[in-house]
Parts: sequence; C-alpha cells; structure tokens
Amino acid sequence: MEFDTITAISTPKGEGAIAIVRLSGDQAVQIANKLFKEKDLNIVDSHTIHYGHLVDPSTETIVEEVMVSVLRAPKTFTREDVVEINCHGGIYSVNKVLELVLSSGARLAEPGEFTKRAFLNGRIDLSQAEAVMDLIRSKTDRAMAIAMNQVEGRLSKMVSGLRQTLLEILAHIEVNIDYPEYDDVEEMTNTVLIEKAKTVQNEIQRLLETSKQGKILREGLSTVIIGRPNVGKSSLLNTLVQESKAIVTDIPGTTRDVIEEYVNVKGVPLRLIDTAGIRETKDVVEAIGVERSKKVLNLADLVLFVLNNNEQLTEEDRVLYNQMSGKDVIVIINKTDLPQNLDIEEVKQLVGNATIVTTSLKEEQGIEDLEKAIADLYFEGQIESQDLTYLSNARHIALLKQAESTINDATEAMRNGMPIDLVQIDLTRAWELLGEIIGDTVQESLINQLFSQFCLGK
Amino acid sequence: MEFDTITAISTPKGEGAIAIVRLSGDQAVQIANKLFKEKDLNIVDSHTIHYGHLVDPSTETIVEEVMVSVLRAPKTFTREDVVEINCHGGIYSVNKVLELVLSSGARLAEPGEFTKRAFLNGRIDLSQAEAVMDLIRSKTDRAMAIAMNQVEGRLSKMVSGLRQTLLEILAHIEVNIDYPEYDDVEEMTNTVLIEKAKTVQNEIQRLLETSKQGKILREGLSTVIIGRPNVGKSSLLNTLVQESKAIVTDIPGTTRDVIEEYVNVKGVPLRLIDTAGIRETKDVVEAIGVERSKKVLNLADLVLFVLNNNEQLTEEDRVLYNQMSGKDVIVIINKTDLPQNLDIEEVKQLVGNATIVTTSLKEEQGIEDLEKAIADLYFEGQIESQDLTYLSNARHIALLKQAESTINDATEAMRNGMPIDLVQIDLTRAWELLGEIIGDTVQESLINQLFSQFCLGK
Repeated sequence: MEFDTITAISTPKGEGAIAIVRLSGDQAVQIANKLFKEKDLNIVDSHTIHYGHLVDPSTETIVEEVMVSVLRAPKTFTREDVVEINCHGGIYSVNKVLELVLSSGARLAEPGEFTKRAFLNGRIDLSQAEAVMDLIRSKTDRAMAIAMNQVEGRLSKMVSGLRQTLLEILAHIEVNIDYPEYDDVEEMTNTVLIEKAKTVQNEIQRLLETSKQGKILREGLSTVIIGRPNVGKSSLLNTLVQESKAIVTDIPGTTRDVIEEYVNVKGVPLRLIDTAGIRETKDVVEAIGVERSKKVLNLADLVLFVLNNNEQLTEEDRVLYNQMSGKDVIVIINKTDLPQNLDIEEVKQLVGNATIVTTSLKEEQGIEDLEKAIADLYFEGQIESQDLTYLSNARHIALLKQAESTINDATEAMRNGMPIDLVQIDLTRAWELLGEIIGDTVQESLINQLFSQFCLGK
Repeated sequence: MEFDTITAISTPKGEGAIAIVRLSGDQAVQIANKLFKEKDLNIVDSHTIHYGHLVDPSTETIVEEVMVSVLRAPKTFTREDVVEINCHGGIYSVNKVLELVLSSGARLAEPGEFTKRAFLNGRIDLSQAEAVMDLIRSKTDRAMAIAMNQVEGRLSKMVSGLRQTLLEILAHIEVNIDYPEYDDVEEMTNTVLIEKAKTVQNEIQRLLETSKQGKILREGLSTVIIGRPNVGKSSLLNTLVQESKAIVTDIPGTTRDVIEEYVNVKGVPLRLIDTAGIRETKDVVEAIGVERSKKVLNLADLVLFVLNNNEQLTEEDRVLYNQMSGKDVIVIINKTDLPQNLDIEEVKQLVGNATIVTTSLKEEQGIEDLEKAIADLYFEGQIESQDLTYLSNARHIALLKQAESTINDATEAMRNGMPIDLVQIDLTRAWELLGEIIGDTVQESLINQLFSQFCLGK
C-alpha cells in the first residue's frame, strides 16, 4: 500500500535529554534531507545514523543539533521508509523540529497511525497492534511479559489455529452438502465434526477463563484498605509501597476521580485507591467515615480489611464488613505484637470464607503471608507459568464469548440433526468473530476507532 | 580519559511511543550485547541500527522488542562508545530495560553525567555544556537560537578571544618586567596596554548589556495582567494565548506557587503569572482583591495594566497603579469599540512615562500595537538581529562582572603608575575569571555542582 508521509513526536511530552520526531512514508527521507545540512540522506545506507544540524530553509539558520536515523522499507516498524530525528529533549526544540518537518511536506500523524500502518501494511495483526499499547501501559513484569507474548503473536497464532480448525469443519460440511450421495460418510463425519467443534469451544473457554487474571494484570486490581482508625491502615499502605519492587505512580495529567498508587505484589499490580485518604489521616483518631468508605468500596475489586489484634471486634467493624459484600476480601489481623484481645472465632463467623492473615506491620511480620494471599486469590497455581497466554483485552473477550456461544449453537444443531446449512452459518460466523480479533475480517470504522486510543507518535 | 560505563533513561518520563535507554563508556557495546538476542553487536559497524529483542539472561525470556543504535567513539555525544536502546515507551518497560542494563554491568548515571563526560573528554567546553540545558528549557524561537549559538560555541569563541588579548597584554608586561632597561619602550607600551585592556573591558560591558534580554529570553518575562473587574483581563489573556505561535504550558510536576502560562510575543517569552486567578473569574464582577494583586505583583517584571475606555478612571485604578512602582508597566486602554469616557490626559498624569496602548480586544484591534510595545520595551532595535550573542546564564554574568571590575582596577593602576606586578595580578585574575566561563580554569566541585542541575539522562 502507498500512503502519504506522516510525522509526530514519539517520545513522552516533557523535558528530557532526548526527544524523537519520527517520519514514515515514501517521502520520509527526502523531507528530512531538505532540512539536514551535512550530507545527502538520500544516498546513505539503510539503518544508519547521521550526526548533523537541521537548518530552517526559510531563514537558513541552524535550528538544532540532531542525530538522524534512516531506516528504509521494508525492515521498519511500519514497513515504510522511516526517519527518526533525535534532538535535544526540550519542549520547544522538539516542537520546532516537528514544525520544520511539517512545513517540508509531512502530515501530522493521528494517534496510533504509525502502528495502524504497521497493521495495514501487514507487519502485525490487530491483536499484536493492541498489545503494543498494553506493553506501553503495563505496570508489572507479568503484565509486560503477557503483552510481549501478544506482540510476538502468541494469541494470534492460537486464534489462527482455532480458525483453521473451523475452516476444516466447514470444508467437511461443504463436502456433505455438495455430495449428499455419500450417506455413509455423513453419519461418521457428523460425530467427528461435533468433536472438532467441541475442541475449539473448549480452547475458547480455557482462554476466557484466563480473562479475569488477564484483566487484572493489564489494568491492575482495584484495591482499598479499610479499617477503623488506628488499626494500621497507613502502615499497611507504606509496607506495600516499600516492599513493592516496582512502584509506578500515576503520571500527572491522567487525572481520575480518586488518587491511586500502583504497587507490584508478586507480579500482581494492585491499584491502591484513595491512598490520599489514608495518607492524609495524620490524626489517627479521625475515622474513615462510613459514607466515604462506601464510595471507595464501590470502586474496588479487592478489599484489605484491617482489624486490631489488641482490641475486640466492634460494631463499627461489622458495619464496615457488611458494606463489602460482593467484593474479594482479605482480612488482616494486625498488631500481633500486642496482647490478643480479638476473638478469632468471632472474626471467622463474621467473614466466612475470606482469607485471614495475621501481621505485625510494626515488627514486619506476616507481610510475606499477606502478599502470598493476594497472589493466590487470583493466580493460584499459575504464578510460575510464564508461558500462559492471558486474555486481557475487553474487545477480545467479547468476541471470544460470542464465538463460543455461536459454536455452541452449531454443535447443538448438529446433535439435534438440524439442517446442515444452519450449522454452516453459525460456524462461519464464529470463524468471522475470531477473525476480528486478529483483524482479518474487520471493518474500517473499527480500525479507526481502535487506533485512535493509541498515544500520539506510536 | 577512561571512565566506567554509565546508563540512564534519556527520554522524558511518561507514556509515549518510544523511550531511550542510553549507555556511554568502554563497555557500552559489550553490555548491550549481553542482552541482545539477534546478532553480535561487538562486530557491527559504528552508527548503525539493529532491530531485535532484549533477553533477560536470568530467565532467558524475551523482555522487549528494541532498536539498538551502536555509536563508537570518538564521533559521539560523549566521545565514548555510546549505545542507545530504543524500546516501547511505557514506564514499566523502559524501567525494565534500564534494570537489565544495570544488572549487566552499567552504573546509573547522575543527572548531567553524559554532558559532563562530553566536557571532560574535551568535546565541548563548559559554556557549551550549559547551553545544552538552555536549549532543552528554551521557550521561544529566539531563546532557542541563542542557546543553539552557544552550543555551537559562539560565546566560547568570544571569551577565548578576550582571554587571548589579555594574554598578549600580560606578555608585554612580562617583557617590561624582565627587560626594564628598555625605558623608551615602556612609555609607549603602557598607553597601548591601557588601550588594549580598555577594548576587552568594552567588549565585556557590551556583553553584560545583553544580559537583561538574555535572562528574559532564557527564563521568560514574569508578567501579570492587572485591572478592575470587567475591563477585559481574561479577553487579554485569551488573545495573548491564541495569538502566540508557540504556547508552552508548564509541565505538570514542576510545581510552583502560582499557575503560569508561557506565551511567545514576537520572540519574547512571557511567563504569565496567576492565569488561573484570571481564568477562574467567571463572574466578571468578582474583583481581583488588593491583597491578591499585591502578592502577584511581587512576582512580576512586567505589568499589563488594563483600563476601560468606556469608564472614568476610578480610585481603585489609582490604588492598583500605585502598587506597581518599580515594575515595567504597559497601560492598555481597552474597549475602544465603546464610547470614550476615560480621560486620557488623566491616565497620562497617573502613569507618567509608561507606554500606553489602545485596544478593542473584542474587535481584535490594537493587538499588534500591544505586542510591539512589549517587544520594544526589552529589545528595541534588536529584534531582527539573529546573530547577537546574549548573556543569559547567571554564572557567566557574575564572572564577566568580576572580570570587568578586575580589568578596570588594572587600567586604573596602569594610569596611576602603580607597580606593574599589581597590574599583572589583576589581569591574570581577569584571565582566570574568563576561563571559568568556558571551564578552562575551573574547579572539580564547581563542575559537579553545575552538572547536577541537568536532567537525568543528558
């Protein structure tokens, strides 16, 4: 395919040592060459780097000191000619370079347009393209490993395999329709077909089962710390933040309603909600009001419910716990360094099956148990499995659910001896739905919508 | 010189399409090669780019898809071997790459350490190094052009020239001291020496005269818009913001006491203070209180004082104006589209020599005049001069002032026939002071302090 030449700033906004203005398209090298002073970029080898200066053609003054990378098609991110101009990372200077590139004939890229071209030019499929953004937004090792797997095409291969099986079933059905005279073959084939369809269905189910974990790994597990005053909420917060190997705080600018902090607990990214509420509470007597905890609880998937080992269970504890219905709860009995006045049996009666962990945050006891409890709740037995392909993308999940139900309709129809063309319609639909995941049977409007969620310059 | 191998993330913090982890030092290529899967980077040509994957040696899993640039000494930013790893611009992913590089033998660079090496390895002098940060922080075309001039060594050359002249004078004095028998020569030489010293002094004075403009171009001109309610303050703000070719808002994170906005008025960067105060004023009746304007005025260099052409001068206008003493004031008589009720003579009596501009912001009249008034106030007659070297760095200004006063002492001493060795001491000191600007006679501690103000990865 042939497109016009696009450009954008590909590094994050802000002051830094280096910023990159990227160009992609047939004219990429020529446009950069109009501005580059020292040599003729049109004749340099591909995948080489050139030091020099950008000159504003209108004033013939030197504007920036740059390193220009020339990458010729097809071995590039977009499979088009790509030029990357590395300049000093000032906000003004990089904008000035962008301005020069734009006035020399490039068009400003839309968000995600570089990746869109990689897709349209066939370098990656849609699920790989989507994984690129997951990779950029990943918060932990495991989230990154999953995104990387998907960038490398693991999900694509799996989905392609399933589609291949569906095609084979459809081919068999085709034979049966076209050559109905082979009655004996049909009987046998129908059983085999149901079996094959069932395999596809099972595989889809297995994938869908990973979606809860996938979503957690991708988006983080919304977590709140709840408890009466003075039970150790802020100690727990600080412990989690300190123990965390990789803390990723939200970038200023991506404002949300509540203040959040990411911590990485054994590869599970916890998105701690309302940490400001906890941090603010300098006066430990100040309670986290019932109204406030209600509001915060609504946002949470996981509740870390802190109790005081040194005090009896109070009415307030019960009120707080009763607000948590429908959430995953881990009960933390803190302050085991102090004499035990809490009746554990009473706690067990209150919280039922919820995991109970005892800690002394002050003496750094029980923290490992707590982290293990969190990891086990969502990834029991799977922690070591680096190879698992998790479903994490809401679009993929929805498509797989539809495909699964459509295949289910088809197998039911086969079992009940329904007309074979109905089965054929269902299976074809399932094949199409799976195709949408990798972008094989996907509409233009969806493609535009998908890539517009990307960051600029990608 | 030989140093260990340093590394840092060289792109701004945040999510973006691309992030760069940079390495510099003897081991840069070997360290990157330990992690790179596809080929042996030790044998690739310099200034080439290589697509591939980074593998975590401890788990042998693929961590990232990268483009690795190999740049061998001496044609690099630091004059050492440099490797740039371009990875997906996620916060976690770039940190993961940095972690791998660190665990493979590189040391985390201190802020400015890459530029420091460029200085220590003799690629740039100190004033050029400082200009690199000015370039990154520049807010307008002109600020950037000045910084670029300085990066290219224009100030360095000028200072080196002055030092050369001083050396020549010192050499003459040396001759006079060593060969005092040539009495007739001495008489003549002393006059010539004073003349030569005077040239150096004049040149330094000329440079120092540019320092006010230099500082404005570098740091922006602190500007407030002051006026009674409903005179058009927020219209003025919006006009300036819209007219501005390059608006650079402050990056979140670099928090200051007041909210600021940068606008570019004919190359003069105005740092508009308390723009939030103006924007907030949705209810036009709400006054900007006297207390508040006092506080904001304290921060300003330039005051844009807005009056209403349709109303008489009020006591409140007088109170506001009286707070502005010691500031540069431009008076804007706005709303010329409405009948004139303001007595211009009365305004002139109040504001004395301050520039008065009439505008109708509503009908977009007089805006060009206002912009010209602002530019003229600081850069009269110099607007077109792209070549001027402005002093903008406080350290350079202080050193030049000291050098100037030392040379002054020397010429006075020569005129008054003081012992020639006193003159010699003064001139030597001036030569040293100028040397400190370009880093020729500079101490280790100063170097460390200077570079620590740089951003990480530069």
